[in-house]
Order: sequence, then C-alpha cells, then structure tokens
Amino acid sequence: MRLVIIGGSDAGITAGLRARQLDPTTDVHLLVADHYPNFSICGIPYYVSGEVPDWRSLAHRTRNDLEKAGLQLHLDERAVGIDVDARTVSTVSAAGEARAIGYDRLIIATGAVPNKPPIAGLDQLGAGDGVHLLHTMGDTFAVTKTLEEGARSAAIVGAGYIGLEMAEALRNRGLDVTVVEQLGQVLPRTLDPQLATLIETELVRNGVSVFCDTAVTSIETSDAGLEVNLSRGGQPGSLAADLVLVVTGVRPDTRLAVDAGAKTGFGGALAVDTGMRTNLPDVYAAGDCVHTHHRLLDYPTYVPLGSTAHKQGRVAGESAVGGSTTYAGSLGTQVVRIFDLVAAATGLRDREAAAAGYHPATVVSASYDHKIYYPGATPIALHVTGDTVTGRLLGAQLVGHSSAQIAKRVDILATAIHYGGSVDDIGILDLSYTPPLGSPYDAVQIAAHAWQDNQVR
Amino acid sequence: MRLVIIGGSDAGITAGLRARQLDPTTDVHLLVADHYPNFSICGIPYYVSGEVPDWRSLAHRTRNDLEKAGLQLHLDERAVGIDVDARTVSTVSAAGEARAIGYDRLIIATGAVPNKPPIAGLDQLGAGDGVHLLHTMGDTFAVTKTLEEGARSAAIVGAGYIGLEMAEALRNRGLDVTVVEQLGQVLPRTLDPQLATLIETELVRNGVSVFCDTAVTSIETSDAGLEVNLSRGGQPGSLAADLVLVVTGVRPDTRLAVDAGAKTGFGGALAVDTGMRTNLPDVYAAGDCVHTHHRLLDYPTYVPLGSTAHKQGRVAGESAVGGSTTYAGSLGTQVVRIFDLVAAATGLRDREAAAAGYHPATVVSASYDHKIYYPGATPIALHVTGDTVTGRLLGAQLVGHSSAQIAKRVDILATAIHYGGSVDDIGILDLSYTPPLGSPYDAVQIAAHAWQDNQVR
Repeated sequence: MRLVIIGGSDAGITAGLRARQLDPTTDVHLLVADHYPNFSICGIPYYVSGEVPDWRSLAHRTRNDLEKAGLQLHLDERAVGIDVDARTVSTVSAAGEARAIGYDRLIIATGAVPNKPPIAGLDQLGAGDGVHLLHTMGDTFAVTKTLEEGARSAAIVGAGYIGLEMAEALRNRGLDVTVVEQLGQVLPRTLDPQLATLIETELVRNGVSVFCDTAVTSIETSDAGLEVNLSRGGQPGSLAADLVLVVTGVRPDTRLAVDAGAKTGFGGALAVDTGMRTNLPDVYAAGDCVHTHHRLLDYPTYVPLGSTAHKQGRVAGESAVGGSTTYAGSLGTQVVRIFDLVAAATGLRDREAAAAGYHPATVVSASYDHKIYYPGATPIALHVTGDTVTGRLLGAQLVGHSSAQIAKRVDILATAIHYGGSVDDIGILDLSYTPPLGSPYDAVQIAAHAWQDNQVR
Repeated sequence: MRLVIIGGSDAGITAGLRARQLDPTTDVHLLVADHYPNFSICGIPYYVSGEVPDWRSLAHRTRNDLEKAGLQLHLDERAVGIDVDARTVSTVSAAGEARAIGYDRLIIATGAVPNKPPIAGLDQLGAGDGVHLLHTMGDTFAVTKTLEEGARSAAIVGAGYIGLEMAEALRNRGLDVTVVEQLGQVLPRTLDPQLATLIETELVRNGVSVFCDTAVTSIETSDAGLEVNLSRGGQPGSLAADLVLVVTGVRPDTRLAVDAGAKTGFGGALAVDTGMRTNLPDVYAAGDCVHTHHRLLDYPTYVPLGSTAHKQGRVAGESAVGGSTTYAGSLGTQVVRIFDLVAAATGLRDREAAAAGYHPATVVSASYDHKIYYPGATPIALHVTGDTVTGRLLGAQLVGHSSAQIAKRVDILATAIHYGGSVDDIGILDLSYTPPLGSPYDAVQIAAHAWQDNQVR
C-alpha cells in the first residue's frame, strides 16, 4: 500500500512514522516542499537568538533517522495538484521537473502560511529590504542575513507568542526592539489583560518597547532604513527600524486540497472527522491545515500548534493504514517563555466560555511556587475559570517565573479538563509536595479553593 | 459549638481553619503539646542545612495568623486522656498543671512518632550523646546543638526521604556523612531499584557514603565519639560518627485515642471513614495518626505525608461542623529532591499492584525534559506501570534533574490516575509545549507510548 504525504513538518512526519510503525510494509513517500524535513519551527527564535548555535540541530530527527524508519523523502519537491479520481499527486521539483506520483492513501499536511495584514507597502517590500515574515527555515535564513548585514533595530508587528519570542531573541542579539500590537495587550489570544500586563512589564524590564492599541498603517524605505508608520487612537506616529518582522498569526494552507474538492470548516481550514478523514476518498489531513476538534466546544476551532499537529498526524497515520483511533481533541493548551517569565493557558477564557454557552466565573489568585521559607520562591498569578452551574473546570491561565514549573502546572489543569473534571476536584488531587518544589496544597489547588470560596452555591 | 483539636501540626491546624471558615461561630480550641504550632516538619532538613536561616520561618502560619483566624491555641499543653462519655479531654501543661476541657466535637490529630528500630544501645543513648531521632522542632534544636558542639561526621540510619534530605543537609554543613540502609537500595518505599541507583550515584557524587543491605546492630560511645556497629551479609563492620540520626520511618501516635476506645485499622493507625469519623461519637481524626484511603486499593493503607494530612484535616474540619464532604483518597504521590536530582512517584509500584490484584506491567523509558537543541536539556528516567488487562494507569516513577519539572510532571500522572485514566490517555492529553520547557509529546507521553508499544494486546 502506498501512502503519500504532502508536507514534511510535524503532522506529516508523525503520520508517516506512525503508519510505518503500525504496518512496516507501508510504502511511505513524503513530498517536502523545501530542504528541511521535520524541522522544529517552534525552535526558530532560539536559533535567531544564538542560543541554538547550529540550525541543523533544530531538526526533530535527521534525514538519516527518518529514512531508517522507512520514510522515503522527496525534498525540494512541491505538490502542485491532486487528482482524486486518478489517485495521483502532481509535483514540481526545485529544478523545475514535473511528475505525478500515484497513491493508495493520501495525507495532506500542508500546514499554514503567515497572515499578511493590510499594511501599505508590505506587498512591495521583501526580505532584501529587511521586511520579513517568519514561518520556514528559508524565512529564518533571510532574517539572520538581515542581522548579519548589521541591523541594529527591529520593529515586530504582532505581540503573539512568536512576536514576543522573537523580541527576546533580537534583544539577545543586541538590537533595539519595538513590538507593535493592534489589540490592547500582548498575547491577546492567550491571556486575560491583567496577566498580559505582567508579560508586558517583563518585556519593558528587558528593554523592549511595547506599543499596544497601535496599528501599522504602512512601511516605507527611507535613507535611514525602514520607516514603520503607526496609528494609535487616530494619532499618527512612526518608528525607524532596520528590520521589520510581521508575525500576525497564520492561516491554513488549503489551496491544493480545496482545488481537489476538499471541504473546509472553521476559519477556512480543512474539515476532517476525528479520524482525520477529509470528505475525499482515502484522503486524510492533519496539522495546521485542518480545523481542530476541541474537548470543551461542540464545534471545531483552529489551533495551529506543534503539539496538536503531532497528535493529529499520529491519528492520520493510523487511520491511513486502517486503524480506528480518533483524535481526542484539543484544549488549546499552550505555554510561552518570555525572558524570565512563563505564561501558560489551557481551556476556555471567560468570554470564550460564555460564547460557548457555559456560565463561567473567573477567579484571580496568587501563590508561591514553593514554600516561601525555602530560597527562590516566586509568586504565580493564576486565573481559574469554572462553570457556576455545573462546577466544571473550563480553563486556567498561569504566569510565573521560569523556575516555577508553570508549563507542567498548566498540564495538571489540562489533564483534569480532559477528564471533564470540576474545579472542586483540583483541590482534592493527591499532588506531590516537598518544600523546595511545592506546597502541601499546590498553587493550582489554592487557586481552585479561591474559586470555590468565591462561589455562592 | 466547641470543637477541641488535639494536635497543632498540619492536620489539626487545617481542620481548625476549615471549621472556622465554614462556621465562624465555632469555638475552636487547639491543644498543642509543644511550643510550635503549624510548623512545617518537612522543612526541618532545610533549617539544619542552613538554607533556611531562621527556624521561625518554618511556620506555615504565625501564631498571630492563627489567632486572627479564630483558633484558640493552648501551647505546651499536652492531652493525656479522653473521656468520651463526659466529652472532656484532660491535659497537663508544661508547668505541670492539670485540667479538663469539654468538647462538643473532638478531632484527634496526634500525628506520628518515629520508629525506634531494635538497635542495641539505642534506648540508653540520647541527644546529649549525639544520638537523635528527628520529628519535632525540639528534636531539630537537639540536632543543631550537636552540630554546634563540633560534630564533624554523621551516620544516618535509614535511606528514606528524610534520611537522604538530612544527608544533603549535613553535607552542606560540611560533615562527613554515611547513610546506612537495611534494605538493598535507597528510597526503598518510593522507587524501583533501577531508579534508586540514580539517586545513590548522586549521593556518592556529592560525597555521601551509602551502605545498603546493611543493618545497624548496636551503637556505643567510645573515646572518639560514637561507634556504629554494622552487619552486612553476616559480616560485621563499624563506623565512627559524632552524630547518629535514626530516621527509619514513623508509626501512628494513637495511644490517647485507643485508650478512649478508638478502633484501629491498617498498621495500627486509627480507623476512620472517608468523612474522617472514628468509631467514637463526635470524634474525628486526621493526619499521620489515621489510616489512609487509597484510590487504587480496596483497603486502607498508611501514608504519613504532609500533603495527605492537610487534605484529611480539611475534611475532618468540615465534618466536625456538620459538612458532608469526603476524603477523596491518596495515591501515595511524593517527591524528594536530593542534591541536583528529583525523584517522584505516584500510584502503585509493580509488586504492590500485583499484590492488590491488578495485572501490572512496568515499562522503563527515558526522555529529555525539553527539546535537546535548547541548552540545559536533561534526561528524565521514567517507570510507567499499567494494567495489562484493562489498560489502566496504575503508577509512575520519575527521576530527573531539579530543573526538569519532575514534581509537576508526576502530578500530571497523579491527576490522570485520580480519574481512573488509562496509559493510552496520557499520550493524547493536550499538554503544553515550548522548546525550552518541553516537547511536542511530553516526556510522560513518550513514556506512555513506550508502555503501549511494549504491550501485545
């Protein structure tokens, strides 16, 4: 059985490996548009920062590893068409050679492409001018080229997690960095405003200028470099920068699949069932190009994250060889480290929960990560969202120091939400305790108690 | 309503605070045998080590905090008898004054006392000779007195978590330290032997001598200090030490309650229902003096841990004011940091699971705490135990670096076990990911996949 996979990033690779693991006779071909299969896109900021000295180490697995596992990689070969009736994918190589490759099963893992906001001049300027999008290893090398050419200041458009990670990376490289965000806070899709303020303060403490509620209207070249024109509350402004990075989220890359007749769902992403099947016969899809089932919502959403792509890819690979597993659904769990702070979130925020028909209440609390008498204790700020009618835990956000185990604390809450747990449950979990690493009631349990104490039930 | 609580440590204090929170009219009296209410016994090693400079900061809450919360503290007043019919507790103060205090409801939170193993000479020697048990603040001050008198070497009898934490503490104080353990490994009640070896290596790397499979037969005074006589495989031996610390576990302190007619359960601990009620009318009990309900066992066990005592105390306090909550049960979750390593465990070990009627299999794996390309990645060794018939997750053990979020990673697994989750579930949880703090599949998920891959089902 020949399985063709379009895309060599998290979802595609994981699908291929899983298919081979379950049925080692599967003939797996991966079409990879560039020369970088299985690269950790999430690791790009740490290469740019200099913390990861060699870009090659960003590969989750080497080409050799992948080939040993039985994946046949076709690098620099872009899929340009799918013929569902003929069961072929037509491709063009970097050298311009065209061919068609037949499949029995097909997995589409084309990922996402960066959003391009309506900024005047953006279409006319490119990497050679110092204006960058950031999504591929090619984009990454273009950014480092601008840096090597002597860029000393950067304007980052978008204060999502990639924007903020890149702000840190470019500060580490010694640049003056300004982050411009159209909405009223940093990490607008992750955190409540009160918690976002902690992250904004950390950015400023580390020399990053942050302009929220500010739109970029145009980008122009000038004698001094680039001029980024702004609008804030109707007032114009501008800033000069040698490098402009536009990181305002991504949208699913679905053209190929849609042209072949695939249906789309939320946000234009490919519609798939929980087995990652599209509406096309023997065609599956996974990762940033598909909509995402959510455990707390009755309808799909869009969660373009590496952790999600891996899980969906694993299911797609299993489905493609005849398995019956299903994707369990996302909670939108995420974590980002910004300088010395870590912000994490899982589940629904208050407004999202209300829009989904829940009756949420969100309670704010703060606790130390471990017993305060032991050196190094730092405070964790927590928001816990629960349903006031059913008591169900709906979501949580945490911000704390990078030593405060924030990433795995949010995972405790994500695990409880996975099982449909209540806020009350959190308080009675048998969690681990030793004074240098926790408290008899962990910070997440103190937050749950605070939520309980705030309810009149 | 007058609520009398015997015991001023975790369970007693938590019970009193919860009772007052739920019914502020409750007249709460706490009988505290010493002068140190609400002290963090788990913090003693960090005071001895010097990391916590002032012993006063070991108090979870100050006396003032407790009194503000409405607890009436009777310090240095030891309960010596309970008259269930008359509903009185008779006490003796440090000054020798006797009285009886009436109660409507009584909570027994007398805790535990250190085991005294059958070592010749142990009964004749005491703190003045440099031979110590370690359970109270009084014991702590006796140890620090021996240190201040110039002790330069220590023998620690027992390689449980307190023994190992004290080994680290005394090394920090510059002593030569030897740990002697009768069983074949360190942390015998927490870890499988393979993982215990990692901890033993860390101890040795930090200059601690470790003798396992070695019994202490007698302790004698000599001109040079103390002589600890050993037996290993029938071969005699001895070591000289200025300080001997005997930390071979604890047993429930139940004399008062038993004399009043209370029934005992597992290991001689007080038998209580899940509402923390004893068999005596209006008498509750919680903490290290009671047996512990376990979520994976059909019968109670004994888990003398601060985290457990807090939760049981909270339930006892609620029951005492008429509430109907129940103790959810323990999983025996624990964590200990030994120098730069952290060991954690939850649920049942393979042998325990088999003894309880499960069909366990335990699979060993190792994963990095975060993406290896990002600096500072360290390996985590994991044992996952699951039921081969039902797929249920039964337990897990983790050992890793102190930066590796081990404490909260074990909590993810404890949370899944709380809900009766399967090993398969772990792999599909939506856990957080960013390269400096995790992987797209977290270490606990890779361990779950390893377990799945090892099963023929």
